[in-house]
This record gives sequence, C-alpha cells and structure tokens, in this order.
Amino acid sequence: MVAKKSAGASTLQTEVCDLEGILKAITPAADAALRAAVQQRLDSLTKPRGSLGRLERVVIDYSLARGTADWTLPRKSLFVFCGDHGIVEEGVSAYPQDVTYQMVENFINGGAAINVLCRQNDIDPVIVDMGVNHPFDPGRGIVNRKVAPGTKSFLREPAMTREQAVESIEAGIALARAAARLHYGLLAIGEMGIGNTTSASAITAVLANRPADQVVGPGAGLVADQVQKKAEILTKALAARGVSSDDPVDVLAAVGGFEIGGMCGFLLGAAAARVPVAVDGFIATAAALLAVRLSPAVQDYLFLSHRSAEPGHRVALELLDREPLLALEMRLGEGTGAAMALGVIESALRLYREMATFESAAVSDKT
Amino acid sequence: MVAKKSAGASTLQTEVCDLEGILKAITPAADAALRAAVQQRLDSLTKPRGSLGRLERVVIDYSLARGTADWTLPRKSLFVFCGDHGIVEEGVSAYPQDVTYQMVENFINGGAAINVLCRQNDIDPVIVDMGVNHPFDPGRGIVNRKVAPGTKSFLREPAMTREQAVESIEAGIALARAAARLHYGLLAIGEMGIGNTTSASAITAVLANRPADQVVGPGAGLVADQVQKKAEILTKALAARGVSSDDPVDVLAAVGGFEIGGMCGFLLGAAAARVPVAVDGFIATAAALLAVRLSPAVQDYLFLSHRSAEPGHRVALELLDREPLLALEMRLGEGTGAAMALGVIESALRLYREMATFESAAVSDKT
Repeated sequence: MVAKKSAGASTLQTEVCDLEGILKAITPAADAALRAAVQQRLDSLTKPRGSLGRLERVVIDYSLARGTADWTLPRKSLFVFCGDHGIVEEGVSAYPQDVTYQMVENFINGGAAINVLCRQNDIDPVIVDMGVNHPFDPGRGIVNRKVAPGTKSFLREPAMTREQAVESIEAGIALARAAARLHYGLLAIGEMGIGNTTSASAITAVLANRPADQVVGPGAGLVADQVQKKAEILTKALAARGVSSDDPVDVLAAVGGFEIGGMCGFLLGAAAARVPVAVDGFIATAAALLAVRLSPAVQDYLFLSHRSAEPGHRVALELLDREPLLALEMRLGEGTGAAMALGVIESALRLYREMATFESAAVSDKT
Repeated sequence: MVAKKSAGASTLQTEVCDLEGILKAITPAADAALRAAVQQRLDSLTKPRGSLGRLERVVIDYSLARGTADWTLPRKSLFVFCGDHGIVEEGVSAYPQDVTYQMVENFINGGAAINVLCRQNDIDPVIVDMGVNHPFDPGRGIVNRKVAPGTKSFLREPAMTREQAVESIEAGIALARAAARLHYGLLAIGEMGIGNTTSASAITAVLANRPADQVVGPGAGLVADQVQKKAEILTKALAARGVSSDDPVDVLAAVGGFEIGGMCGFLLGAAAARVPVAVDGFIATAAALLAVRLSPAVQDYLFLSHRSAEPGHRVALELLDREPLLALEMRLGEGTGAAMALGVIESALRLYREMATFESAAVSDKT
C-alpha cells in the first residue's frame, strides 16, 4: 500500500491552485430534476418506499454532488493531514508533541487505527505532512506540504501568518484536485496533531460565538482539572488574539493549525471538483466550519461522519445543522470515524447500484 | 454464492437439538479476569485510552462471549428466517402475502438489499424457509425447515400449536449449532414475512405489558388510518388470545410466527455454542425478547444492530436495556441493519487484532 502511494506522491505535490480562484468555481449542488430521478429509481428497488432511511438521503446527496445519477461505484481515498501546535507549550495536551511524528511513522508502517479501517473498507490512505515538527526522510510515501515545523503558541502570538494560512489552504485545494484527477469519487479527511483539539475549540468558539468552557474537552485524555486549565488558557488566548469571525482566513491564522488549513482547502477543492468528502470528528469539523464560511455551497459536498465524544463537536455540528451518520462515542481522530462512515456511504451507493427492481425481480409492489 | 450455499444446505437440515437441553447449556459470559485482560490489551494499542468508544465495548463483549481473548478474525454468516402470517387476512399489511415468497426468490437470485450488504461485508447469507406459503423447488439453496405454510390468523385462533412453536424454536437451535460447527464466529439474524410486524408488535405488547397503540407502526408502508386499524385489530386479537407473558413458548404459539420462533431458537443455540449474534430490527428483537425470557444469559451473546424506524422497536429495546450500534432510520428487515452492524463489529475486532502497540510502534504513551 505504501509503495503504491509513493508513486502518486510526486503528482500530489506538484498540483497548485489559488484560494480566490477556487471560491469562484464552487456552485450549489441543488437540482430538482436530478433529485426526482434518483428518488424514482430508489422507489423502484425491491424494498418498501423510504425504508432505507438515511441511506436514501446519502444516495440523493451523493448524486446531487456528482451532478449525475449515472456514477459508478467510486474509488475511495482518505487524507490524513498532520501538523504540530505551538499551544502544547502551555500544557494543553495529555501527550508529548513527539507523538505527532511518531504516529505519522505508525501510519506509514500500517499499524495505526486508520490503517486497519482503510484496509477493511478498501480505502487508499494518503498521509500529508502539513507542518509536523520533525524532518521525515524523503521517499517514505509521506506527501510533503510542510508550511513550517509547527505553529506558534496562540496564547502568545498568532499561530501563523496570513500568508501561511493561505499556503496551507491552497495545499489542501491542490491535493483535492489531484485526487479528483486520479478519479477518486469519494474522499474523506482526518488529522493528527498533538494539541489540535485546542485549536479546533478556539475556531469553534470564535465561529459559534461561544465561551471557551462550552467548547473544550479532554481531547486525547485530560482529567477534569486539566480540562479546566485548558479552558482558562483558551479564554486568555482568545482575548489576547481578539479575533473576529468575519474573516475565516484570519481565524485560521490566529488560532488554527496547518493541518486544519489543509483540510479546509481540501473541502474547497473537492467541492469545486464535485467530489463529496466525509468529514471526520471535531477537528475536521472545525475545518469544515471555516470552509463553509468561505463558501456556503461547500455544505452540499460534505458528509458528516460521526458524533465525536469531544464536547465541542456538538457545538460545531449545531452550526452545520446536520446529523452525522454514526455515533459510536469515538474520539480518536486520524479519520477513523470518516473511514467507518465511508463504509456506510458505500452501502448506500451499492444498494442503489446493485438491487433488483420490483419489475426485474417480479415482486408485487404495494397494494 | 448460491452454489456454495447449496452444498451446506443438507448439513444444516439434518442437525437437531431440543429446547429443554439447550436451556441447560447456556451460561452467563461474565469473567472479570478475561475482561481485565482484554481491556489491558486495548489500552496498549496506539490510541488514547478509551478513544474507540463503543468499539472497545464490542471487543470486550465479543471476547467474553467467546470465552477467550485469543480468537481469530471470525467468518460471518447471516441467517434470513422466512415465514408467512395468517393475520394478513385481516388487512394489516401494505403488501400482498405473495411478496414473502417473491422476496425469497429475490434473495436466492442475489437481488435484494441483504444480498448487496452481505457481498459488501463478506457475509455468507443463509435463507431459511420456516413457513412460507409457497412450495419452493428443492436444490435452490433454500434451507427447508418449513413448519407449515404460514400461521393462522391470531385474531381468530392461536397462530400455531404449542408443538409447532417448539418445532420452530428447535429448528433455529439446530441451525445455530450447525453454523458453530462450520466455524462461523460471528452470526446475524434477519427475517422476511409479510405481516410480521403485527406479530412482533403483539409479542412486544405482551412481554412489555403495553397497549397495542404503543407498539404498532406503519410496517412496510401503511398510512395513518391503516396503522389505526392495525392497532384495533391487535387490541382485539390480544384480548381474544388472553395470552400471559409467563410462558414465552405460549406467547409465540398464540401470536408469533414460524420465522420468529426460528430466530428465537437460533439465539438460544448460538448462546449455547458461545457465538455472538447481531440481532436486526424490530421483528428480530421481538424474537430476542422471547429468547431472553427463556434464558436471561442469552443477553451476553447478543449485539443489538440498529434502532429501527418502526415505533414498537423502542419499546422492545427498553426491555433489553441496551443501545443499538446504528441509528439510520432503516425499516427494511431482511437482516439489513444486522449486516451493517457486522461491518462495525468487524471494525472493532480488526482494530483489536491488527493495531500496533505503543511499545511495538515506539510511540510515547500519555505523560
């Protein structure tokens, strides 16, 4: 699997796209005639009408995003965006920063949770270094889009410059467009970055206009008084940065992360290419909030994968006003919830493609 | 797939087991030392402790049911129990009775929803005729355990005799034991039977001691005033049968179905063989209620798959006091929810078996 990825890595690193251009290329997916055609085929399949529940809505949303009902069963790829966070200096994480690069090595060696779930669901994983504080050996199958070796502590200064924020978004755009050119028809995003629940909490607090204590949680494993300390640091940092929700790029620069910028850009690029993306948990959802602020039509190209156990995720999901497909109390990141959601989405797509109709199977319809 | 099944069909038809004997063979799965050993291994994997959420509980429950932490990734099989219902004479279903046998043909031809989901998740489907009102040609890969060509209308007389109820349960026991002998380590049950939500509603009403209107719903597609009529018929039928919840076999005989008896027996036989079973939606859960009344330890060998959109399912789930893995508003039957749940359970089992440990991957543990 790694060898296969290495071959693609150079393609993925040379693709470039600019933020302003991509925003003009994203259009809403709504199409009443297409929706009716898909529903009509769903109703012709050998099952009571509507009985596939949310799976039927998945088929409709997928078809609208693709702009056709004539898609074939898609190839699937999951991008894991990785980056380090200066805010860990303030003691907001249960794990040391080195775990970010150690887990990237684990991804490359196939031993992490996301590797297992990608193997099970026939998903090609792509590991992207957006800003890990570690020099990886070239040729190991890691896509190198490193903006810098980690952000700054946003308690003390902006996490990154505005130029770096745009660079991280444009890296994500380029990767999504490359994936679309490689004919992946269903994508997913996940992340790895010690300290990044703090960044996701900050973004959610700003965009939802909520105080810090409503959006912080244990992350990878803080106990109660550590969560309290994390909330206090976040309150101070948000006051110090004085960031407003009007400009999503400034929010990213002030309190974000390079991997969050990468995921935000990936969602923009995928929407422009009309390829739906399954968004993982809390941190990926924070990136989705930024992308939807930049271009509301991005909503039409998202699947929300799962409801994370991290408390801030509820606030982020309320802003998007959508219910995730799964709720398994997972809080692991890496794209693990998204990988499982791809399995559910694939079920929906296969049912649409492979089921017999009342006519073809000679089954009597409703009396 | 069908050819492969035909070869196994004769084995599955000759296995016999008696109800009294099996009840003595079922023991609780609790084992504190084993639970601790599984949790210890879960905590050694490269993820924050507890971060796989409900998947970790799946691994623990699976290991306790198997009585070991040294299981290999299981082969999976899903049994679809099929039977017809005399109560359809009273106009309780949106579809004609012939749809039962037509859908069995659809299963055998691979065109139904359950076939699609079994192919996706590498599950061997087994189709069992417990009492369909149709003579199937032999040699088509349908396991023949037909008790009678459909039950009687339980508005007018008991659905079946006590002897038939025991026969249907013992057929299910035999099939589960045969599956265990074929080294399936993870099983699932689903059903097909026009009219069987009415039977499941009746069983749930009796065992939960609830009035009919709290346990009836649209089934495969009734509109509001038809649901009202179904509730009235059920109220009359329950009064006419005067059935008490003290004897689950009598409940099955009075208002049940042959496929419900088959699923009930299958759960008993699987529990005795210590093979966990994923229970599909409302009708399969009604069978589980009967099995758990016959032997409370059966609880330790069940996975509840999904929360069906059928209203009576909520009442049935409250009796079992467990939350299903999925909630996708499906109401299709056939085992479709269980097939999807097997995918989730397999994710959990693969993560446990395939993930690297902090030690093996040289990842720093929590500080």
